[in-house]
Amino acid sequence: MVCGSCLWWNRSADSSTTEVSEPLPQPEHGVTVVFVALPNTKIELLEPLGDGSPIAAFLARNPAGGIHHICYEVEDIRSARDRLKSAGARVLGDGEPKVGAHGKPVLFLHPKDFCGTLVELELA
Amino acid sequence: MVCGSCLWWNRSADSSTTEVSEPLPQPEHGVTVVFVALPNTKIELLEPLGDGSPIAAFLARNPAGGIHHICYEVEDIRSARDRLKSAGARVLGDGEPKVGAHGKPVLFLHPKDFCGTLVELELA
Repeated sequence: MVCGSCLWWNRSADSSTTEVSEPLPQPEHGVTVVFVALPNTKIELLEPLGDGSPIAAFLARNPAGGIHHICYEVEDIRSARDRLKSAGARVLGDGEPKVGAHGKPVLFLHPKDFCGTLVELELA
Repeated sequence: MVCGSCLWWNRSADSSTTEVSEPLPQPEHGVTVVFVALPNTKIELLEPLGDGSPIAAFLARNPAGGIHHICYEVEDIRSARDRLKSAGARVLGDGEPKVGAHGKPVLFLHPKDFCGTLVELELA
């Protein structure tokens, strides 16, 4: 979820029952992230960091913010990639996993192949 | 996720390891839905049904589809609503829960109060 400074971020940080991380700058990815840990999923709040942030275009198209992508944890990221590729999905970039926000390998899949939805795969 | 006929829908339905529902027309909500049950969450695929579908405007803005909303399960939907209202969030419609796709009470919160994200609450 791309988020500047909104009600959700501010209020969530007040909560004593939900685990909310400190803002974590990730200069190599051009974003600052906050993770909100729920019992069965995580919400990732994203804010552009620096010039040429990869989410700058998204915010230009969605000035109020919005849901940027969804992430699925997978047991074997290369096997998942190859299965999706064989089904016709396009993998972004050079197709090789990169280290993501949790220090784990991640890949992104082309939104045009998933109903306009940017899909991230992360090694569980 | 708003989805016409895409790779994801078609391929997921082939999977023998993932529970994918049959398309379920919901004329009263103006959508046809498919649920993909994952171990810790559900993906809801939405397709407009009939004239004046509530997702028609979304598809007009996002012809390729996209992520339409996120849904949080809550233990007490009126208590959750009141807490969010007291924090400044706006509840859509008349503010009273309606019966959603799972036959459970649901509410929607104003995207402008959640970084451009349409948020649904559903009674767990």
